[in-house]
Amino acid sequence: MSDTSPITIAFDAMGGDYGPQSTIPGAHMVHKKNPNIRFMIFGDQNKIYPLLSRYKSLEAVSKVIHTDKMIYSDDRPSAALRASKGTSMRMAIEAVQNGEARAVVSSGNTGALMAMAKMILKPLPGIHRPAIASVFPGTKGDTIMLDLGANVLVDAENLVQFAVLGAVFAKAHKNIANPSVGLLNVGSEDTKGPDHVRGAAEILSKVDFPGHYHGFVEGNDIMESVVDVIVTDGYAGNIALKTAEGVGRVTTGFSRMR
Amino acid sequence: MSDTSPITIAFDAMGGDYGPQSTIPGAHMVHKKNPNIRFMIFGDQNKIYPLLSRYKSLEAVSKVIHTDKMIYSDDRPSAALRASKGTSMRMAIEAVQNGEARAVVSSGNTGALMAMAKMILKPLPGIHRPAIASVFPGTKGDTIMLDLGANVLVDAENLVQFAVLGAVFAKAHKNIANPSVGLLNVGSEDTKGPDHVRGAAEILSKVDFPGHYHGFVEGNDIMESVVDVIVTDGYAGNIALKTAEGVGRVTTGFSRMR
Repeated sequence: MSDTSPITIAFDAMGGDYGPQSTIPGAHMVHKKNPNIRFMIFGDQNKIYPLLSRYKSLEAVSKVIHTDKMIYSDDRPSAALRASKGTSMRMAIEAVQNGEARAVVSSGNTGALMAMAKMILKPLPGIHRPAIASVFPGTKGDTIMLDLGANVLVDAENLVQFAVLGAVFAKAHKNIANPSVGLLNVGSEDTKGPDHVRGAAEILSKVDFPGHYHGFVEGNDIMESVVDVIVTDGYAGNIALKTAEGVGRVTTGFSRMR
Repeated sequence: MSDTSPITIAFDAMGGDYGPQSTIPGAHMVHKKNPNIRFMIFGDQNKIYPLLSRYKSLEAVSKVIHTDKMIYSDDRPSAALRASKGTSMRMAIEAVQNGEARAVVSSGNTGALMAMAKMILKPLPGIHRPAIASVFPGTKGDTIMLDLGANVLVDAENLVQFAVLGAVFAKAHKNIANPSVGLLNVGSEDTKGPDHVRGAAEILSKVDFPGHYHGFVEGNDIMESVVDVIVTDGYAGNIALKTAEGVGRVTTGFSRMR
């Protein structure tokens, strides 16, 4: 965050439940915190410009690339992928592919975004699958958790790869040298949990990776800042994320997590 | 709850982190709400009597069966099972086996309790595995969720059996004729989720059971009283339970769930 050289982000303005109404004010929030970011904004210019003109300093660092095609949130990922050419999501991903942007941001159809990004950008060598990560605000600092739903079925090796991804993310996000990584499980004893979780524990306790292995953590550790990174499969991770959101909403207006 | 004929409960006083200090006041709370319950209290009489004597009306409906043997919370279930003879937990379970009590209550070592109960009392015909259930207080009424950790790996058939158990529990607990049963999953679409969850959905949508099948529910539905019963495996269920506890504890003192 201390680097002030310009970074260009490809931004799909049409994603999410409210499209540009939410995404343009969102971009402005990012812009205020990170003035070095340049925005390539993909989507319907007739909807984007009226909103963008309200944020003059954001407008000054943004370039709008018009398209009236978009992926809808209820499109099936496979169908969305086939008909994706010229959509705001795909064009934003292609801006990363051709080197115009360093990263892509979209709050659109998650399955389509994962599938398209995997096909067009491809995972890093040694990483077989992308994962969805989020930052949980904890009592004593943020915890990064992944996967939150991209991969329902994973094996031990996938979890180890998620540990690598999460540790690298934590280094950048928390600005720490050696993040601690825990595996989400149903107990702290070695003998507990499903095969893929125990298998990942065995590998992580032996290999070098960009962090250190803490051991098993449980659901109640997610908000307690016990580790910097929590690794899980997309099944348990998605259920934990949505349970946390639901309990948060019922107990207090826990709006930070949405 | 409207039935006032006496019911005898076998009560393991030695379980939990604090033993009789917590379990005897707990029994008193049950007694005040349910004066028709008779207690068979198993455990160390030297620890039980001084506490029990503070609650004269509980004492009047209780019989203490002394033993100074107990199962510890860090005993392995298999080892606990072998050395269980004469422990307060086992004696309480045997009171149900020999017909002296209608149910057994213990807050001791969960794995040992499940293993011992399965071996001594055996599941009902057609039910292959016991499950851990709990009642989640929701915005518009209680939701019963199971399994919360007894069975990490289950198949579709196990989940269907848990649906039957949960529906019967809901009928009694909520005093309703036709409880709604949802399967915890990572999305509401038919194509989502792991095989055992989709397989259970297929069976539950076809068979007659003591409730009706609602469809998939997600983590955020747990506290929203969307269904009367939520069925899941012990892996996702335990993670959801502990996540809910953790978020509840962090956001407000959500002590009802402990």
